[in-house]
Amino acid sequence: MRQKVVDITNRPTDSDPIKIAAELNRLEPKKRARTLQQMPTEMIDAVFWQLEPEDQAVVLDNVPHDQVIRLLESMDPDDRVHLFQAMPADLISRLMTQLSPRERHCTELLLAYPKETAGRIMTPEFIRLKPGMTVSDGLAEVRRHRDKAETIYVLPVSDDAMRLVGVVELEDLVLAEPDERIQKLIREPQYSVSAWDDQEVTARLIQAADLFAVPVVEKDNRLVGLVTVDDAMDVLQSEETEDIARAGATEPIGRAYFSVSPVRLVRSRIVWLSLLALAGTLTVNVLSAFETTLEAVVSLALFIPLLIGIGGNTGAQSATTIVRAMATEEIHTGDLLRVLLREGLVGLILGALLGIIAFLVVSVIFDRDIALIVTLTLIIICTLASLVGSSMPLFARIVGVDPAVVSAPVVTTVVDATGLLVYFLIAATVLGL
Amino acid sequence: MRQKVVDITNRPTDSDPIKIAAELNRLEPKKRARTLQQMPTEMIDAVFWQLEPEDQAVVLDNVPHDQVIRLLESMDPDDRVHLFQAMPADLISRLMTQLSPRERHCTELLLAYPKETAGRIMTPEFIRLKPGMTVSDGLAEVRRHRDKAETIYVLPVSDDAMRLVGVVELEDLVLAEPDERIQKLIREPQYSVSAWDDQEVTARLIQAADLFAVPVVEKDNRLVGLVTVDDAMDVLQSEETEDIARAGATEPIGRAYFSVSPVRLVRSRIVWLSLLALAGTLTVNVLSAFETTLEAVVSLALFIPLLIGIGGNTGAQSATTIVRAMATEEIHTGDLLRVLLREGLVGLILGALLGIIAFLVVSVIFDRDIALIVTLTLIIICTLASLVGSSMPLFARIVGVDPAVVSAPVVTTVVDATGLLVYFLIAATVLGL
Repeated sequence: MRQKVVDITNRPTDSDPIKIAAELNRLEPKKRARTLQQMPTEMIDAVFWQLEPEDQAVVLDNVPHDQVIRLLESMDPDDRVHLFQAMPADLISRLMTQLSPRERHCTELLLAYPKETAGRIMTPEFIRLKPGMTVSDGLAEVRRHRDKAETIYVLPVSDDAMRLVGVVELEDLVLAEPDERIQKLIREPQYSVSAWDDQEVTARLIQAADLFAVPVVEKDNRLVGLVTVDDAMDVLQSEETEDIARAGATEPIGRAYFSVSPVRLVRSRIVWLSLLALAGTLTVNVLSAFETTLEAVVSLALFIPLLIGIGGNTGAQSATTIVRAMATEEIHTGDLLRVLLREGLVGLILGALLGIIAFLVVSVIFDRDIALIVTLTLIIICTLASLVGSSMPLFARIVGVDPAVVSAPVVTTVVDATGLLVYFLIAATVLGL
Repeated sequence: MRQKVVDITNRPTDSDPIKIAAELNRLEPKKRARTLQQMPTEMIDAVFWQLEPEDQAVVLDNVPHDQVIRLLESMDPDDRVHLFQAMPADLISRLMTQLSPRERHCTELLLAYPKETAGRIMTPEFIRLKPGMTVSDGLAEVRRHRDKAETIYVLPVSDDAMRLVGVVELEDLVLAEPDERIQKLIREPQYSVSAWDDQEVTARLIQAADLFAVPVVEKDNRLVGLVTVDDAMDVLQSEETEDIARAGATEPIGRAYFSVSPVRLVRSRIVWLSLLALAGTLTVNVLSAFETTLEAVVSLALFIPLLIGIGGNTGAQSATTIVRAMATEEIHTGDLLRVLLREGLVGLILGALLGIIAFLVVSVIFDRDIALIVTLTLIIICTLASLVGSSMPLFARIVGVDPAVVSAPVVTTVVDATGLLVYFLIAATVLGL
């Protein structure tokens, strides 16, 4: 790894910030910190915007004061807010006082909105046009204020009271006649989001409508900012990473795999693992309750892992499908009944298909009684698992919990215990124990 | 649902294609087809580009011939190719002959590249500038060819042999002096992809570098197209949906949840479920091998679901983390050893932590022997599970299989059987059976 440390710092010529940031993210924390401290000034300037907030903080700790200010001033307001979230409060307030009034104002604007809202990821730095302007006025406005705006491709149009009228795109200005009115160029259909809307909802709108940016409004439709497509992509990426982590019963580590210590990996997993283990002890109770049945027919034990395994997988399939469909807003909590009917049917069919095969195999290798027990259990477990796997994410959303939290592993654990119960109740009945 | 059918078709005034498409995707197949057939022409024109290829095909089956051609002509080439993929070959060739020569040519260009490559999702319709042009030449070129290009925000610059020189953005033209040379405005750092590059790699570059579009080149750096950010977002979305589906041991259904029949849901799950069940039968074999041990100490059976459950969850945690890190290109196959060391350590720590707690609890409720067996098993199973869960995705990539395929459920199934083996070997040793 020492190799790599030298590797990066000795190539100030390679100016591709993406590659450098990617290499940095493959270094363990200590080495990364050392590398950042060794980085030549011009490379830091080039790569800073690509760094994780934590690393940006490290950089700011190690560069001269004037560069700190230069780097902070150069950031987009939403990125700066993101960085500040990774800093101690006193440091933030000290840095704030050193920002130019304009940048400080922008930062405070964003910080006024809760985390994960459109207001937090928007840029308050945009060029706004007025409906009455001509195209040439508009272009003049763009040229005059370019360096004050994050993008000039999407230009919000607002009235004198800053109420959003619509947006025009730079393209429209370039192609229209100079004396055309801005009013005439406003895009249809019109889209906008509230500063208090969820960042993921905002990002999905940008994606679905193929927008470069969507205007952000406060109450009375007052224009306050713009969320750009690049921020939307980052939001979707981090939301997906979060959902996937949760689906695997880990807390998101929030940054690149190699860039966190093994201890941090343990911390991201131990809580979930313990909770699931605790819930798993239910299976011990169920089995103790049926210990006499087990002693009578030990061969019943042979099918325990297989049956609860299949149940767990069926439940995981439903949960994964539903959680994803909820994330992409295809399913709402109101669909609970509709979902249960579909998933119940799907689970029943899956269970029946597997059950038939199981009956043929088991009745040959073991005996008809065991075969009957296994088959009936499969049918019920699969139906049950699909119902549990599909309803739990919806219930989670209803009580305000992230549906991704109750996906595969949680469902599997729930199905394990109930599956055993089903198995032994059927066994006891069939065997008349 | 009938309600909804009327709902959509009676609101030609609501022209937001996003909302209409979303509503359509919540209808079962039959109702959706009926709705599409009832849709007024102007609404079809508005919503067509937002429809799933399958639904676009349905529409084309039901509208007059001239509208078919109009709709096809209006599509971006990459979307048209996407649609053709959902059509029978003979129909494609018939439609191709009716396209304008230019659109046909574009479509054939894209179809020449394999699925899931940059070449398939690029647009061959772009405005290219030459290094020697002045800014005003460039702007004139943009105005002249606007309707021939999918975007005018990113303008590739190429020499007379069509070799890519770089890109300029419309912004640069608008802000530069009219007599400035295009050469001078070329963006740094320069990015481009090969037409044969994977579509996900292309999309992630666009995301990482915050690009609006990236130029696509053939051999000799010959410029052939442009991949735009909106296509990149769609690629990432579908790749992520695919990964998540695989992580849940289902085949991606490739469209909205309610828009597919329960039978199609069954088909997307039965194959994986059967394969996993087949692999799961290994657990039956392991248990039969130790049936005598079980008969001697039935209470051993009590911990089977709990132990393999914990093992499965630990493996799922590793697998999920690694698969995601591979998708975002933080981990390469070359990192196998590095990953194994980290995950082995993490698994060992997790196993030790749970083992200690287990020992205290079990030795109180049951006896020291059982407690010892459970603890040792936990430590070994967790370490083993982390190693399996982290290595399988990497091995999959090495042999050219999608790593997402061997995530949580597969790992869990593998860990189940090996976990049981570990458990009973330890038990036999400790109990001297």
